[in-house]
Amino acid sequence: MTDVIATICSPPMLRLELVNTGTELCLGDTINTNAAWIGQRMAALGIEVARQTIVPDGGAVREAIEEAAARADVVLVSGGLGPTNDDVTRESTAELLGLSMVQDATVTAHLEAYFTKRNKPVSAATLRQAMVPVGASVLENAFGTAPGLYFPAELGASRGWHSHIFLLPGPPREIKPMVENCVEPRIRALTPDGASRQVIYLKLTGIGESDIVEKAEKELQAVPGLELGYCIGKGDVDVRLAGQAGPVATGAQIVRDRLGEFILSEDRRVLEEVIIHTLTESGEWLATAESCTGGYLASRLTDVSGASKVFGHGFVTYANEAKEKHLGVPADLLQLHGAVSEPVARAMAEGCLQVSGANHALSITGIAGPTGGTEEKPAGTVFIGLASLGQETVVRRFFYPISRDRFKLLTSQAAMDMLRRRMKGLPI
Amino acid sequence: MTDVIATICSPPMLRLELVNTGTELCLGDTINTNAAWIGQRMAALGIEVARQTIVPDGGAVREAIEEAAARADVVLVSGGLGPTNDDVTRESTAELLGLSMVQDATVTAHLEAYFTKRNKPVSAATLRQAMVPVGASVLENAFGTAPGLYFPAELGASRGWHSHIFLLPGPPREIKPMVENCVEPRIRALTPDGASRQVIYLKLTGIGESDIVEKAEKELQAVPGLELGYCIGKGDVDVRLAGQAGPVATGAQIVRDRLGEFILSEDRRVLEEVIIHTLTESGEWLATAESCTGGYLASRLTDVSGASKVFGHGFVTYANEAKEKHLGVPADLLQLHGAVSEPVARAMAEGCLQVSGANHALSITGIAGPTGGTEEKPAGTVFIGLASLGQETVVRRFFYPISRDRFKLLTSQAAMDMLRRRMKGLPI
Repeated sequence: MTDVIATICSPPMLRLELVNTGTELCLGDTINTNAAWIGQRMAALGIEVARQTIVPDGGAVREAIEEAAARADVVLVSGGLGPTNDDVTRESTAELLGLSMVQDATVTAHLEAYFTKRNKPVSAATLRQAMVPVGASVLENAFGTAPGLYFPAELGASRGWHSHIFLLPGPPREIKPMVENCVEPRIRALTPDGASRQVIYLKLTGIGESDIVEKAEKELQAVPGLELGYCIGKGDVDVRLAGQAGPVATGAQIVRDRLGEFILSEDRRVLEEVIIHTLTESGEWLATAESCTGGYLASRLTDVSGASKVFGHGFVTYANEAKEKHLGVPADLLQLHGAVSEPVARAMAEGCLQVSGANHALSITGIAGPTGGTEEKPAGTVFIGLASLGQETVVRRFFYPISRDRFKLLTSQAAMDMLRRRMKGLPI
Repeated sequence: MTDVIATICSPPMLRLELVNTGTELCLGDTINTNAAWIGQRMAALGIEVARQTIVPDGGAVREAIEEAAARADVVLVSGGLGPTNDDVTRESTAELLGLSMVQDATVTAHLEAYFTKRNKPVSAATLRQAMVPVGASVLENAFGTAPGLYFPAELGASRGWHSHIFLLPGPPREIKPMVENCVEPRIRALTPDGASRQVIYLKLTGIGESDIVEKAEKELQAVPGLELGYCIGKGDVDVRLAGQAGPVATGAQIVRDRLGEFILSEDRRVLEEVIIHTLTESGEWLATAESCTGGYLASRLTDVSGASKVFGHGFVTYANEAKEKHLGVPADLLQLHGAVSEPVARAMAEGCLQVSGANHALSITGIAGPTGGTEEKPAGTVFIGLASLGQETVVRRFFYPISRDRFKLLTSQAAMDMLRRRMKGLPI
């Protein structure tokens, strides 16, 4: 069962398997985000990962590589390339393929430069990382010590294998550039028309997957050679279009025509990035006044480097007294309508605009739950206000009866989307 | 290679394997958090997951279960129990074991009640979930439609297998209670002394793993029958003690004696929960004034249900003008020392205390980076102030030259820990 609509359709497909090594993955001390990231990258190439195998460091690694290599066309192995005793991926693979190892001069020089720069000695254990099986190619690691290795399929011919094997480092900041720069070009070269393949992502917000399907899927599926996928993000959905340049361009135009107002970016930028960049371009300032989201909206905005150029003032007015004192919300308004109400959201946004001197102010007041709801305003009810200099204040009511963290996420997303729509001249 | 110090040492160990099914896992649309969570639960029982296998929905599921069942003592399978065509886990397992299926009256009644309550018809597809292989036990699903199933090892005897097989639902909120209530008791019963085994977690903050090791590990490792593990959390470290009651109690006392001031909870509560609960007990209020963390501290505090009883006012004073206007920080102080300075952190905390009327106020001012640093104050520099009614204001300087999100996490953690220490009467 899956909540995710995901279609990949590119025969003939390579069988690709992933082997992640690391005791920390088996003990659950590390969440396997590499596997998901690689899955997405391969899906973008039209390949569904056929199997992921995760084993602890040590002897199980060899077993897992052997099994995967016997089944697959491409095996990506991550982890176990480091200097410690339980890092056995390099040696296990060489043994499986019957390859001897030689010390590589370029890798040795890289390791020596790396450690000299850090005023550390180059130990014998470290130099194990410079050993390269004969016939394998070194994949440069710009962000760490252990290089990757690529074993072309012909090295496994004597065992009856036909799989290309890549050994990659475990840390995300090391494996990601290596996959993008060294693995994907080689996989593209193995796929028919792989080299000229394109993938684009149109990121949508303010619309659910089922509405996307209803409004555009039929037309998209009618484009010959276009592969279509959806990827649910944090409050947004990526429409993934892959194939040759022509069909991809046709597909993108269909999405723009049918769903243009919901497209927040075509380069995978998330909403807070789009907001900060758009404000920076227009030279406008934003301020926030949050009750139930408790600072989460401000925190998302300030996740973007450079936010200080357009965001100066944020208020977390959790208590009614704070709404009165800092935003000038009249006490009788709170008394009459309650803190969670259209008039209070309006007064918060307008008060925030005034006190901050910003061009736009977003306000949020609601009931995050799980407690605090009433029959008229159940937990999950939230009012979002947007006040802008010289424009009419808008207040919208939303209902997110979900977990507290999802509530904060979707509420802050809806708030930023109101501002995005205003800045683009779309109806809010 | 692993950053995590993790030791599990309980021979004789059961071989336990995990099979996660779901196309969304292979495409990377869902991060496999279940695997990590189950890994931690099993580690707590003294079992290291020997292998995780992840396959897409459909035919690969049968293959993966067959292989795992041939190797392992216990196989936990998640996903593929739902009503759609690609949900084949139940049928595949029954076929592998040569079991016929019968419709279970209790499950049927549960399904009918579930759908009637939601005013939906009970479809034929839905009723597939009530089919139970003969000899398997039903595991109740309190949070969804698909029940779990348990196949005792004797059902596989004809195939030469000795593995207990559990089929579990995929969604986290369904699988977690089922593992805790239905799987773990059965696994305990399979382990020698498993039934009387205990596991406790002491959560520490404000101290690194290497210092924990230095201060207590030798003594802990000398306790006979005590299993020791560490689990790195978000800004904290869990010391995991497992074994029989005696050794666990001895171990816990050692940790309390050697590292007591760093223990924030013994029930896995995270720091924001401890802060909100401690404030609630003492009837005190907290306010926050954040610059570089941009509302993240306030957001963490308001992640805790009931925060509104102790947290009323938060300020995100990103701009200098906001620090002056809302917190009363003198302009000449900002001019003289710069926004990122001891005097400004002090003035922010004291101003925040005054304007909010709270008992405690935390202030944060720093350079999150990656840009904005100087030689004297490089990116990652941060000052945290704590002002409390009738007590001396304390300001501490920290240095976290890391990614923006880790910076926000560790800075907000350090701030809350200063308050925790003050409320416990510890030196800050």
